[in-house]
Amino acid sequence: MWGIIATWKMAEKGVHLATNGLENNGNILDAVEACVKDVEENPDFSSVGYGGLPNEHGVVELDAAFMNGEDLSVGAVASVKDFLNPCSIARSLMDSQFNNFLAGAGAEVYAQNKGFKRQNMLTESARKHWQEHKKKIHDERLSPYAGHDTVCAAGVDKKGRMATCTSTSGLFYKAQGRVGDSPIPGAGYYVDSDIGGACATGLGEDIMKGCICYEIVRLMKSGLSAQLACEKATLDLHNSLTRRRGKAGDISVVAMNHKGEYGAATNRNSFPFVVGNEQGVKVVIAGYKNGRIITGEQDD
Amino acid sequence: MWGIIATWKMAEKGVHLATNGLENNGNILDAVEACVKDVEENPDFSSVGYGGLPNEHGVVELDAAFMNGEDLSVGAVASVKDFLNPCSIARSLMDSQFNNFLAGAGAEVYAQNKGFKRQNMLTESARKHWQEHKKKIHDERLSPYAGHDTVCAAGVDKKGRMATCTSTSGLFYKAQGRVGDSPIPGAGYYVDSDIGGACATGLGEDIMKGCICYEIVRLMKSGLSAQLACEKATLDLHNSLTRRRGKAGDISVVAMNHKGEYGAATNRNSFPFVVGNEQGVKVVIAGYKNGRIITGEQDD
Repeated sequence: MWGIIATWKMAEKGVHLATNGLENNGNILDAVEACVKDVEENPDFSSVGYGGLPNEHGVVELDAAFMNGEDLSVGAVASVKDFLNPCSIARSLMDSQFNNFLAGAGAEVYAQNKGFKRQNMLTESARKHWQEHKKKIHDERLSPYAGHDTVCAAGVDKKGRMATCTSTSGLFYKAQGRVGDSPIPGAGYYVDSDIGGACATGLGEDIMKGCICYEIVRLMKSGLSAQLACEKATLDLHNSLTRRRGKAGDISVVAMNHKGEYGAATNRNSFPFVVGNEQGVKVVIAGYKNGRIITGEQDD
Repeated sequence: MWGIIATWKMAEKGVHLATNGLENNGNILDAVEACVKDVEENPDFSSVGYGGLPNEHGVVELDAAFMNGEDLSVGAVASVKDFLNPCSIARSLMDSQFNNFLAGAGAEVYAQNKGFKRQNMLTESARKHWQEHKKKIHDERLSPYAGHDTVCAAGVDKKGRMATCTSTSGLFYKAQGRVGDSPIPGAGYYVDSDIGGACATGLGEDIMKGCICYEIVRLMKSGLSAQLACEKATLDLHNSLTRRRGKAGDISVVAMNHKGEYGAATNRNSFPFVVGNEQGVKVVIAGYKNGRIITGEQDD
């Protein structure tokens, strides 16, 4: 038994890469890293890594994290510039007893010293998008904060080891130095090999108000299936924010328990995610309608 | 009914200031801010704000956060330099729907634009301490990471509103850009006016592995007293880390529920904290011995 689950259709190729490793006795740390790296390196995905959404100054600042479900190690970077694979920097930080979460210039010094490859992460297409939208935001007084799709993956290998990994360029047009939920343990991700793992995508500012991934893992520990844990945590946070603040930002989550059973939930109309296990790789769609969460495999 | 609880004896004067406000119908946001600002501004406290512990380069980098239990708003800054009151910057960020958590240079740009006062936070005494210990660390190959006392406060005002606030210079000799638990919601702090609030001090790298403050609030929601919630969350995390990693760093927590009942726990020999309410202000000591947590008022 083994399996991996990841957010958004953009993770499909990465999940294929991860399943190749997992079915050949690969460990889950390598699998979730392979999945997320594939998305980071693809310039066609405009919300993660190379080609990601620039901040207010046209600079691509990236958040990423890694968590090992065996010993609860966490490694994370926030608002790091000019490195191709923030998820690999985060993985390397998991080995540190101290200084495991680094932000900004300090994270870049660490990555440079560790030999990670420097690269300008702004593609020509992202630069154009930023310029056009900057003008639109100014001329039409639009709220700029639309795009924000985090790739994240959680899974279990044949030896029962679990891990999770996240990576994102965060909100389009975000303020310099903005930290979203993706590097924050409990908010953007959490995993415990004895129970399961979860990771999130959506409006980080709202996701971090509920520690949703810690809550999903806790609900699985209390006996809920991965699916029910995702649904309960998502609806509870959505309803709490709506009651207290009048509205809730996008919240989408995926989870897998230590037996490889998976779940997902969202408060959006549609949230596609990817699952890979012994039955193959498939894209599944979760949706939210009239206060209820529904899931089903993609038709195409 | 109203009350406030804060970490370490250094918060005693701040708790007095906060109680003056609370008994005169002041709101809890002002009260926890007054408490934490007093510690930030005192150069004699070597782990928070002015006079705080410098990082590996001799620079004082500060983490702080604010959370409003009414609407779950979070504001946070990480590794911010050259501002006297990081807790007030964090409070101001709570009003933002987007970009509520800022790190490094971006946080400094925000604070400057908002008119917060710039100040070199390195005192002569902290500079000397850094120089002497730098030599010792090098000559005697010592682990540098000893001091790390966060001031944080949580409380409830006469209208039942709750809030929490944290501030620290983090680990002595920490890496540039290191982010501890203090700015991380769920790890260093959490509060919900319907239930209660909690905040933490200790080794951030280990505290964030357990989302301990979210867990304490959740345990209070499930019916546990503030004291039992603190004890259960602290012992569970301490035991889990010890089992999985061979050891656990320092973990100390304080909590108050929405009825003003308080609790505290620690895995250290001794952890003094301060409570202020209608009965006055007192310093209480929590301790950990033979796997059990004990608390009692300070004798002097």
